[in-house]
Order: sequence, then C-alpha cells, then structure tokens
Amino acid sequence: MQILQEKICQYGQIIDNRVIKVDSFLNHQLDIDLFQEIGKEFKQRFKNKKITKILTIESSGIAIACITAQYFSVPVVFAKKHEAENLDLHTYQADVYSFTKNKFYKVRVAKEYLHSEDKVLLIDDFLAHGQAVNGLLEIAEQAGAEVVGVGIVIEKGFQKGRTRLKKPGLQIESLAIVEAIKDGQIIFK
Amino acid sequence: MQILQEKICQYGQIIDNRVIKVDSFLNHQLDIDLFQEIGKEFKQRFKNKKITKILTIESSGIAIACITAQYFSVPVVFAKKHEAENLDLHTYQADVYSFTKNKFYKVRVAKEYLHSEDKVLLIDDFLAHGQAVNGLLEIAEQAGAEVVGVGIVIEKGFQKGRTRLKKPGLQIESLAIVEAIKDGQIIFK
Repeated sequence: MQILQEKICQYGQIIDNRVIKVDSFLNHQLDIDLFQEIGKEFKQRFKNKKITKILTIESSGIAIACITAQYFSVPVVFAKKHEAENLDLHTYQADVYSFTKNKFYKVRVAKEYLHSEDKVLLIDDFLAHGQAVNGLLEIAEQAGAEVVGVGIVIEKGFQKGRTRLKKPGLQIESLAIVEAIKDGQIIFK
Repeated sequence: MQILQEKICQYGQIIDNRVIKVDSFLNHQLDIDLFQEIGKEFKQRFKNKKITKILTIESSGIAIACITAQYFSVPVVFAKKHEAENLDLHTYQADVYSFTKNKFYKVRVAKEYLHSEDKVLLIDDFLAHGQAVNGLLEIAEQAGAEVVGVGIVIEKGFQKGRTRLKKPGLQIESLAIVEAIKDGQIIFK
C-alpha cells in the first residue's frame, strides 16, 4: 500500500535495525484519514470472505479495528490485556509473550462476545514474532469461531511471525512488509 | 441521546447502585453503528467550535475518539497509561486516581503531539469522579493547548465529576446522564 509505505518512510523513526517507531500516525497520534484508507484496503483484500466480527487486541489494535469495521458493517471485540494470573471461567484466554516488555501477559475475551457461528477477521497494527496474533487465534479456537483472515498494518518480515502462526493456510494480508532496516533505510518487500 | 439510553437500558448490566457494565456495546464489544451515531452527535453539539485535535485516554476512549474524529476531520492523540513512576522529559504527564483499581497511574502524551496552537476536544467513554478528564486537562494545560470542550458518552451524574473539573465554564456534553441506579432501574436525567 503505497500511501502507507510513504508515511512510514516520511514519519517513521528508526530506533535500531529491528525497531521503527510510528507514534506520529499509528500508535500514539492517529491519522484517521490514513486509517480510512487502511480500512478500505482491508475490505478490498477480504471482499470475498464472509465476516461477522473483527477481533483485535488492546490497545493499539483498537483504533485500526474500529475504522476498518465500518467497511465490513460488523462489530469489534478487543481482547483485554491483564497481568493478573487468576483464571476467569467466563473468558477465553491465552498467554502472550511480549518481546518489548520481556514478559508474558494474559489476553482475554468474555465468552459472551465470541461464538462458534462467528467468522472472524483478526486485525492488528504490527506482525513481528506473531505472539499477539497467535494469542487471538487461540482465543478464537476456544470459542469454536472460524478465523477467516488476518489483516496487519505493518509486518516486520525479518521477524518471521508469519511462519509461526498456529493456523497454516490462513489468508494474511499485511499492508506494508518491512524486509529489513539497513543503514537508516527501510527496505520494503 | 435516545438510542444510547435505549442501549444502556437494554444491554447495560447493573452491578450495584453505582456501577453499570456496558461491555456488550461500549467497552469490550464495540457497536460501531452506535459509535457513528455518537460521533455525529458530538459533531452536532460542538459544531460551532474550531477543533484541531481530539484527545482521549487509553484504552476505552480510543474507539469512540477515532470514530468521532472522522466527523471533525482531525487526528486523535491518546494519553498512554503507565504504572511506572519515572519521569519522562519528553512527555506531558498527569497522575490519575482510579477508583475502580484503587490506585494512581500516570497518563502521558509525547510533547511532539500536542501544541500551544491546538484547540482540543476531550473525548471519553465515562465521566464519573472526573479523574481521567482532569488528567487530560492538566496535560493540555502543560502543552499550552486550549481545551474547547469535553464529550462524554455516559456521565454518572451522581458521582459529581462535572463539578470537580479543574476548568470551570467548559462546555461538557454527555450523551447520557445517569442520575441514579435504584431497585435495578436506571434513571436518566
């Protein structure tokens, strides 16, 4: 997606050869015009799929998921992050490892908001090691819901998350795939 | 706002005489059609104000703020919540007390995303004791930005947050004001 790649090049802050900070339009300040283009692009890429719900994860996925949901006319459910370790019988839950924070946290969805009839599109801002998406896949599996696709804004191709997803054969659409960050340059696939 | 009051009555779970859970459409599962109506209503109520940015707080304000921002054609900035106590020189920050969690947390906005020229609309899902909105008011004040209004989805009128806001004379628009919860009934103002 050309406009997204341009934004990343223009406004992304390269922290090191693995990390680009996109706080100015995606993770802290939110460029809603861009989000609408992203939503339309996801709709285009999944136009042949029947989708009843968008599932995302707190908190940076929420904004993208909500704007996107308008083009699919479906509700959003977001998995909540908890550090607490207690089991909650009324939720589906999965453990997700954060490489950034170097710890596990739980993600949870109340059972009443995800059902076996649901056809779910997973949406998230980043795909890096695949931890968050795998957490959402686990939750969907517990609910018996069918995941019909994964929509990602920025995929860090060099961190291989795509190959680590627990559901092979899934349609994964990343709007920008960063192959490498080298000498202060971002190389897209 | 009639449609919102109806949703609250139909789907809100009354936990006790102070707490209504609206996870099925506002805080966990997100009813995007309703959010669009909410966004339009905020636009209508603040139509005479010049607004350059919507400021909200992680994470339940993000969804409402993003959908609303479309009707104002402005970006969203959301204050991030941190439990860490360390000072960050590159951010504006405020301490917010959570009655639900019975502790203080810090909310922060990077200095580069809020400026003295900004005319800010604050958006949040709930107004209860006014802690979160006061945190956002403090942050805006630090940036020298002008807060031109506050848009709230559900105000708990009996918790007096409105009277505790640190900026008197501010236009505060709550789309539903709960006056009391009595005998399993929600009484709106």
